[in-house]
Amino acid sequence: MGLVVVWCILLILLCCSIEISFGSTRRHFKWDVEYMFWSPDCLESVVMGINGQFPGPTIRAQAGDTIFVQLTNKLHTEGVVIHWHGIRQLGTPWADGTASISQCAINPGETFDYRFKVDKAGTYIYHGHLGMQRSAGLYGSLIVEVGVGEEEPFHYDDEFNLLLSDWWHQSVRDQEVGLSSKPFRWVGEPQTLLINGRGQFNCSLAAHFSNTSMNACTLRGDEQCAPQVLRVLPNRTYRLRVASITALASLNLAVGNHKMVVVEADGNYVQPFEVEDMDIYSGESYSVLLTTNQDQSKNYWISVGVRGRKPQTPQALAILNYSPTSQSKLPILPPPITPTWNAYDHSKSFSNKIFALMGSPKPLKNPDRRIILLNTQNYIDGYIKWAINNISLLLPSTPYLGSIKYSLKSAFDNKNPPENFANDYDVMKPPMNPNSTNGNGVYMLGLNSTVDVILQNANALAVNVSEIHPWHLHGHNFWVLGYGEGRFSAKKDEKKFNLRNPPLRNTAVIFPFGWTALRFVADNPGVWAFHCHIEPHLHMGMGVVFAQGVEHVNDIPNQALACGLTGKRFMKKTKQN
Amino acid sequence: MGLVVVWCILLILLCCSIEISFGSTRRHFKWDVEYMFWSPDCLESVVMGINGQFPGPTIRAQAGDTIFVQLTNKLHTEGVVIHWHGIRQLGTPWADGTASISQCAINPGETFDYRFKVDKAGTYIYHGHLGMQRSAGLYGSLIVEVGVGEEEPFHYDDEFNLLLSDWWHQSVRDQEVGLSSKPFRWVGEPQTLLINGRGQFNCSLAAHFSNTSMNACTLRGDEQCAPQVLRVLPNRTYRLRVASITALASLNLAVGNHKMVVVEADGNYVQPFEVEDMDIYSGESYSVLLTTNQDQSKNYWISVGVRGRKPQTPQALAILNYSPTSQSKLPILPPPITPTWNAYDHSKSFSNKIFALMGSPKPLKNPDRRIILLNTQNYIDGYIKWAINNISLLLPSTPYLGSIKYSLKSAFDNKNPPENFANDYDVMKPPMNPNSTNGNGVYMLGLNSTVDVILQNANALAVNVSEIHPWHLHGHNFWVLGYGEGRFSAKKDEKKFNLRNPPLRNTAVIFPFGWTALRFVADNPGVWAFHCHIEPHLHMGMGVVFAQGVEHVNDIPNQALACGLTGKRFMKKTKQN
Repeated sequence: MGLVVVWCILLILLCCSIEISFGSTRRHFKWDVEYMFWSPDCLESVVMGINGQFPGPTIRAQAGDTIFVQLTNKLHTEGVVIHWHGIRQLGTPWADGTASISQCAINPGETFDYRFKVDKAGTYIYHGHLGMQRSAGLYGSLIVEVGVGEEEPFHYDDEFNLLLSDWWHQSVRDQEVGLSSKPFRWVGEPQTLLINGRGQFNCSLAAHFSNTSMNACTLRGDEQCAPQVLRVLPNRTYRLRVASITALASLNLAVGNHKMVVVEADGNYVQPFEVEDMDIYSGESYSVLLTTNQDQSKNYWISVGVRGRKPQTPQALAILNYSPTSQSKLPILPPPITPTWNAYDHSKSFSNKIFALMGSPKPLKNPDRRIILLNTQNYIDGYIKWAINNISLLLPSTPYLGSIKYSLKSAFDNKNPPENFANDYDVMKPPMNPNSTNGNGVYMLGLNSTVDVILQNANALAVNVSEIHPWHLHGHNFWVLGYGEGRFSAKKDEKKFNLRNPPLRNTAVIFPFGWTALRFVADNPGVWAFHCHIEPHLHMGMGVVFAQGVEHVNDIPNQALACGLTGKRFMKKTKQN
Repeated sequence: MGLVVVWCILLILLCCSIEISFGSTRRHFKWDVEYMFWSPDCLESVVMGINGQFPGPTIRAQAGDTIFVQLTNKLHTEGVVIHWHGIRQLGTPWADGTASISQCAINPGETFDYRFKVDKAGTYIYHGHLGMQRSAGLYGSLIVEVGVGEEEPFHYDDEFNLLLSDWWHQSVRDQEVGLSSKPFRWVGEPQTLLINGRGQFNCSLAAHFSNTSMNACTLRGDEQCAPQVLRVLPNRTYRLRVASITALASLNLAVGNHKMVVVEADGNYVQPFEVEDMDIYSGESYSVLLTTNQDQSKNYWISVGVRGRKPQTPQALAILNYSPTSQSKLPILPPPITPTWNAYDHSKSFSNKIFALMGSPKPLKNPDRRIILLNTQNYIDGYIKWAINNISLLLPSTPYLGSIKYSLKSAFDNKNPPENFANDYDVMKPPMNPNSTNGNGVYMLGLNSTVDVILQNANALAVNVSEIHPWHLHGHNFWVLGYGEGRFSAKKDEKKFNLRNPPLRNTAVIFPFGWTALRFVADNPGVWAFHCHIEPHLHMGMGVVFAQGVEHVNDIPNQALACGLTGKRFMKKTKQN
């Protein structure tokens, strides 16, 4: 124990330091990103790690703190950026960590200084946002506690962090090549689901129950793939911070014999509600309270399974271990069964239970603008893509933040992207004309205007196929005003919007053949990605870009713009030096 | 045939164009670099290709031409550069294509315009020079014919190009991670040798001969891995342009029943000499003349095997096909046997037969400076490295060309690297103190000074092990003054230097436990890499950097320096714009 403490202190001295000044704290971290051998699911792979860890180190801070991350790219040929998912980056849009949007990728050997304020308590994530580096394992947790003297609107005795992800054995490079090939090669379903970076491939912890044909795992407990054990005391209340950073999988989490009370979603408090199991989509986070009111001589499964796609991936398992019961004692009941993958009513029922906690900010009655975004699967020159209002996003090499601020008109498509789609488009059928185009235009939003976005799902290329897409907005929270079936109709559907207590989120799902209505205030000067959080879908063009008040953005570090046309332009002026 | 012609014209229109003005020609190429699925050895892999080709397109030009390559990086997360191996880049040192030395890596989505003059006829190569992208397949041939009205000093009727390489099934990313891991994981011997990007894994074209236990390959001939066929007419003389761009393997080439006359080495004419087989190391090129004076009713093997390392890789085979014999008729004799891997006398004998053609430039009698470079295998913090005079090269993130020109002293180690090594160092034994340090200092050479470099080999970390290292110099040719055994002794060895007709080269090998003496004139303003051409060795630090007359270098494109400290510095000045 003493050794562990010494080691922790050493680690802190090496990688991070804390300065407290006038009530707000500056938290400094030094991170190296590099590839390393790791066995997330007992099979050795190469993962993208931070400071030798996978997942990356958890950042813990208090609301009001300023985080400094000095990120060094130790990769040999690849650039890197890190996005702080859920942090609004008020005043620091250049620190949002989105390559081609908020900054140039950090080159190999270079260091970039991220600086941002964590103004709101909540459960957040960070992850790579260049190519498909998130799929390669570049992610971790960012936990913001309430500020000094503040209190959460619920009680708990202790907390655990559960970061959920999915894992493939095929390298991300090969996945990317397949997605960009003709004929198209899909990445397929993940081999393994991971809880805190831990999963088991080709064996099951629950093999002695009848519901699996796999061999039992033989693990000592100290392996990189050994399951997470949550050691709890009886009759206490625990906060589980659950976040999903999957590349693809929509998930469902359940704890054997225990109910959960949902209290937070994406860093926003919600009206507490009790569930037996919870759906969670990529990019979302929740806090749930769990009371350890069961037989303390037993342990219980925490199980995570796939929703929304025909699952070929076994459940991930962790263990809720009642002290003083041995953690190696297996639960006597089988793991909770994940609801059927296509039981969408179950998913919708969960989503529809989420309301903002009383006292949360409410939306204005009417938006200044409404943008309707049709989600379709398309072809470009025979390559399969995803497109929004028939444009597939192909990011430019110069970050928008610089090209908009400095009016470099040739850096991206200056035409406004479409606000709507054809009246006669049938969302229930495959596209009549499946051909799309690449584009990188920007939705320019009035600063402080209220914007509605209707995400409209549709039939993909194949008949009777429509997929789940969790959309994530950078730099803002939006209110989820409602979900509906079929094509959105302003006349019919608008009046059903929840304007009383819609939940604030940064990620919201569209269900197959349905629509989701969002409202947000464009009050954060900067350029912000809004995209499907499924990594291969974003790679295939499923996103748009919003900008607002870029003229008010100052103090962009030079390094953030030292590429593409901004890099060229600034250097040209100094040619004679 | 007509279709092929149309297709060729289309291809030329798409990717390249030619302008002729005042006798010298400008040749324009548009290249896209991207990963793609390919089966170099009949097994599908991902290779780094150019315009959908592997190896990349062959450039053909005439001496005096100017080449323009507009290179677009279509990789998703990786930078890229291309080095024009053997081209001196007189006046265009920024076009040498070495990341961290002559330019910033080209970012994903960006285009860089290479421009350089090919002033000397010869057989050259181009290849990636960032991380180990060369190992990933980023290479091709660059053939420079004599200028208009000029003649080669030998006769031939036609020519063929043979670009030799080695291929691994493990991805380069995983190779790099292994090389940078503790415990160290070596890349191992290549799975397959390739001739013009074509090899056969797990089967043999020559299986019906007794010297192999492998199955016969069943190929139609149109596969990506089908062997190269050289269709020749009887009683003609052919020039074979043979270049090796292996990542690791030293090779030997032989043609069944045919002798070869060596006439060119690395773009320099040599005294013609006849051989039965020839050794070729990574980074070297030769032209050999072959006369088709054998039985024209038969075909003959061209075989390539491994030297200098215990071979675990089968011979690569191509077919010399006498017209009108069918190309599918297999040779009746088994392929020529590669000399035993450790028959170093055979290798040395070949190297020692190479002399400059009469009339070639001769070295000055005495150098202005002599730098002795000890090649050792070492540890840094337990990681295995290669070091030169106990410094393992770790390239900086700012290219030297900019940081030297603009005196950015913090961009690299300003201390001069050592000119020699300890007197009591025993090159025949493993290092007494195997610990090394990383460094990136530069050997600053007087402009137009004559410099001797003695490459001193030594025992590696294991007892009785010393390896072959082919050293390649950018921006210059050097004279190879001689090879010797054991530790170089100025007193004893200098007088044996060949100052009469030493061959000019850009690559020279050091033999196990031996030394090689080189002389060159530092007459090319710029910053130039000098390194072991074995890709994993360079990755492990086996190189040095020379600079000379950088103050005379002008017109460096901004984009070449838009990274690291040059990028930051230039942008700082324009912050208020």
